[in-house]
Amino acid sequence: MANDKKMVSQITSMDEDFVQWYTDIVTKADLVDYSSVKGCMIIRPYGYAIWENIQAILDKKFKELGHENVYMPMFIPESLLQREKDHVEGFAPECAWVTHGGSEPLAEKLCVRPTSETLFCEHYANIIRSWRDLPKLYNQWCNVVRWEKNTRPFLRTREFLWQEGHTMHATAEEAEAETVRMLEVYAEMYEKYLALPVVRGRKTEKEKFAGALATYTVEAMMHDGKALQGATSHNFGDGFARAFDVKYLDKNNQLQYCHQTSWGFTTRSIGALIMAHGDNNGLVLPPAIAPIQVIVIPVQQHKEGVLEKAHEVTAKINQFVRAKIDDSDNTPGWKFAEYEMKGVPVRLELGPKDIANNQCVLVRRDNRQKYFVSLDNLETEIPKVLEELNTALYNNALERRAAMTYTVETLDEMIETAKTKPGFIRAMWCGDLECELKLKEVADVSSRCMPFGEEPCGDKCVCCGKPAKKLVYWGKSY
Amino acid sequence: MANDKKMVSQITSMDEDFVQWYTDIVTKADLVDYSSVKGCMIIRPYGYAIWENIQAILDKKFKELGHENVYMPMFIPESLLQREKDHVEGFAPECAWVTHGGSEPLAEKLCVRPTSETLFCEHYANIIRSWRDLPKLYNQWCNVVRWEKNTRPFLRTREFLWQEGHTMHATAEEAEAETVRMLEVYAEMYEKYLALPVVRGRKTEKEKFAGALATYTVEAMMHDGKALQGATSHNFGDGFARAFDVKYLDKNNQLQYCHQTSWGFTTRSIGALIMAHGDNNGLVLPPAIAPIQVIVIPVQQHKEGVLEKAHEVTAKINQFVRAKIDDSDNTPGWKFAEYEMKGVPVRLELGPKDIANNQCVLVRRDNRQKYFVSLDNLETEIPKVLEELNTALYNNALERRAAMTYTVETLDEMIETAKTKPGFIRAMWCGDLECELKLKEVADVSSRCMPFGEEPCGDKCVCCGKPAKKLVYWGKSY
Repeated sequence: MANDKKMVSQITSMDEDFVQWYTDIVTKADLVDYSSVKGCMIIRPYGYAIWENIQAILDKKFKELGHENVYMPMFIPESLLQREKDHVEGFAPECAWVTHGGSEPLAEKLCVRPTSETLFCEHYANIIRSWRDLPKLYNQWCNVVRWEKNTRPFLRTREFLWQEGHTMHATAEEAEAETVRMLEVYAEMYEKYLALPVVRGRKTEKEKFAGALATYTVEAMMHDGKALQGATSHNFGDGFARAFDVKYLDKNNQLQYCHQTSWGFTTRSIGALIMAHGDNNGLVLPPAIAPIQVIVIPVQQHKEGVLEKAHEVTAKINQFVRAKIDDSDNTPGWKFAEYEMKGVPVRLELGPKDIANNQCVLVRRDNRQKYFVSLDNLETEIPKVLEELNTALYNNALERRAAMTYTVETLDEMIETAKTKPGFIRAMWCGDLECELKLKEVADVSSRCMPFGEEPCGDKCVCCGKPAKKLVYWGKSY
Repeated sequence: MANDKKMVSQITSMDEDFVQWYTDIVTKADLVDYSSVKGCMIIRPYGYAIWENIQAILDKKFKELGHENVYMPMFIPESLLQREKDHVEGFAPECAWVTHGGSEPLAEKLCVRPTSETLFCEHYANIIRSWRDLPKLYNQWCNVVRWEKNTRPFLRTREFLWQEGHTMHATAEEAEAETVRMLEVYAEMYEKYLALPVVRGRKTEKEKFAGALATYTVEAMMHDGKALQGATSHNFGDGFARAFDVKYLDKNNQLQYCHQTSWGFTTRSIGALIMAHGDNNGLVLPPAIAPIQVIVIPVQQHKEGVLEKAHEVTAKINQFVRAKIDDSDNTPGWKFAEYEMKGVPVRLELGPKDIANNQCVLVRRDNRQKYFVSLDNLETEIPKVLEELNTALYNNALERRAAMTYTVETLDEMIETAKTKPGFIRAMWCGDLECELKLKEVADVSSRCMPFGEEPCGDKCVCCGKPAKKLVYWGKSY
């Protein structure tokens, strides 16, 4: 609907109906639209601009670390996908298959890539000869497809956008170091730029990526206490290398298999942002990725000089922040609501009285705190307010997570906690798949990760009581 | 193959076998690799970096002109594709069809987008209400698929990368202005940044885009005299708007159909670069899009101080150009050949004698002209040499085009010229499809475009002799 004509409608309260609240935000903040393509979404300009900001931060970081961008075909012949057994078992059930080109049936059906390990391996086998060629650090930005049954914008869509890094290394140690290094890049992306604390850890065998030796993850907590897997990084060992014959001559002129990693960050992260920072007035965006960081709203704009000054201020602050002015005929009240819905971090109000006093009012999106600031000090004051907001978002999310994380020792406690208290549940685990499956059955929780660097909280498995091997974060998840 | 071990192999001479020369360059300059996916290519880091540089220039320009990026689903339901008749007739024969999701057949088959007019129209119908919503200026960067029979890297691949702009306007005049404006953006991209002159013009009815009212094109001439369609811009009038019911309320509260454009620029442009500027030593890249603008090559690098100084110079010039050093153990001669193959615009040679004289040697890729330059003047001299090279590339291409453009008046002349002289052929045309088809049959030329702003070169149709309506550029094409 036309921006300047639509009503800023109320959204469903998150306490009343979290799912509807989420759906209201993604549509009313103009992030997505639905189309006639079931399970796929249209990412609208405001949503896509968030993704472009995320891309710019990650892409710069990848390149600083020596990664190079490439582009692989998006089709994978069935026979290529089948070369690594665990992998095809994991992905075949959710592949979209191209069977016809024009009116003719294809000799071999093609899978629309759900992920590209197989293609990268085939290419690496072509171009890697010696230890001098290693490491190979490739990344690609692209779309992928997984034929999901139940879909929701950003969180789970049949097509989504992501980057997938695929690297080859001479040794197991180097591959492991890369896997951990890239997980930390993702953790930094969440914590520093998306203002969202994450638990870093390793996935269990059951939850790891199809074909991987080990999968590491960053897990974030949403408003409703559910976990969202933020991004993952996989160490493949030499499993794929053996299946695809990716070998190199080492310094002693011996043929060795390469060791491989992959890691991905998706448009899902935008869903995480919404569900972690949003409130009952709409979206709340961390400044680093906000398409508009400051919205300038003239007050009593028909009065002489107001619009001129507001445009002048906008041009001035555009030198150091992403600012926009709304000089439409809508009322200031309408505009306030509109840009709160869109999660713009700071609103700058400027009316005749402010101009007379050579000042303006900055209003923070998260708590509506007001700052009366001299027009001469905007270059120092605006970044300060943005930083304060960013810190507050992070700290609120951290406090919420702390308040909603429970430690349990017995199966009864686990069942009771899972039933009554949304959040993360820390509990020891013996390492057996049976206990993991049983916890899913009786408490409806899955293992989120085995966290890095946390002390054990006991010595017995929460499920079977046998000696425990690992501390695990359990929870319900998106 | 490992860079530091491979031989710099000779490539086929372009005079001997132009097709093989092209194939040699795309593989030996590490632009692409082949995979088991027939008709699709792997764009390697060096090739992809060229595309990223092209993207950055165009994306900035689009945004300056008010366009916003979005992302549409890559699948188009068959029924949606069929809504505009000319469009589906044009594209259905080369669609790749997804018929299964997982193991289940789909209720309706999905086309992998060959272009996205239909999806944009469906979305625009949802979001456009009033004249205040117009114009809508959207663009997307994505992959598209057209099931071609004969493929060649960059020039014609089943999957390729592009941007597709799709805009909606209140009036026919505004749509026409946008179509022309975006063609000029493409012309500037070719002429200013890719150093390649283009003929701007309109396509004939036969050659226009499926469903368009008018298609405009920029046509470039390759080394072998063949034409390459560089990019196109289409005015759809209100044809799709009627088929998709995209309407707005005008200022008089009357419902009106929107007027639409689309325009696209693809990875094909990299093929154009190669075939217009390349030579028998390999690729030659214009500085604006060269991944490496200056390659620093230490001479007698084992001598004391040479490597240190070379690194120092590289770091220094990296402040203002994209520079890289090759300090591998390969010989300078090997390195010279390698970076000539890769088309790096300028080579900077630095040996002990140069260092003693506080100078270095700059060598231009296109003509191997040498410049002895003080190390104190690199910041002024390098950009000057890059600019000289860029101008020379453009002028050479322009002169070649002038020398290989012929004007003919009779059918015999047309047939003789097309047979014996590679290049563009200017000739008048009556406007009838029959004559266009006959010229294809008897002279094997297609109409490239009806150029903007050129005087008629006669008054009779070159084919039938009846009164002529249009001057047309004819030629063989990629």
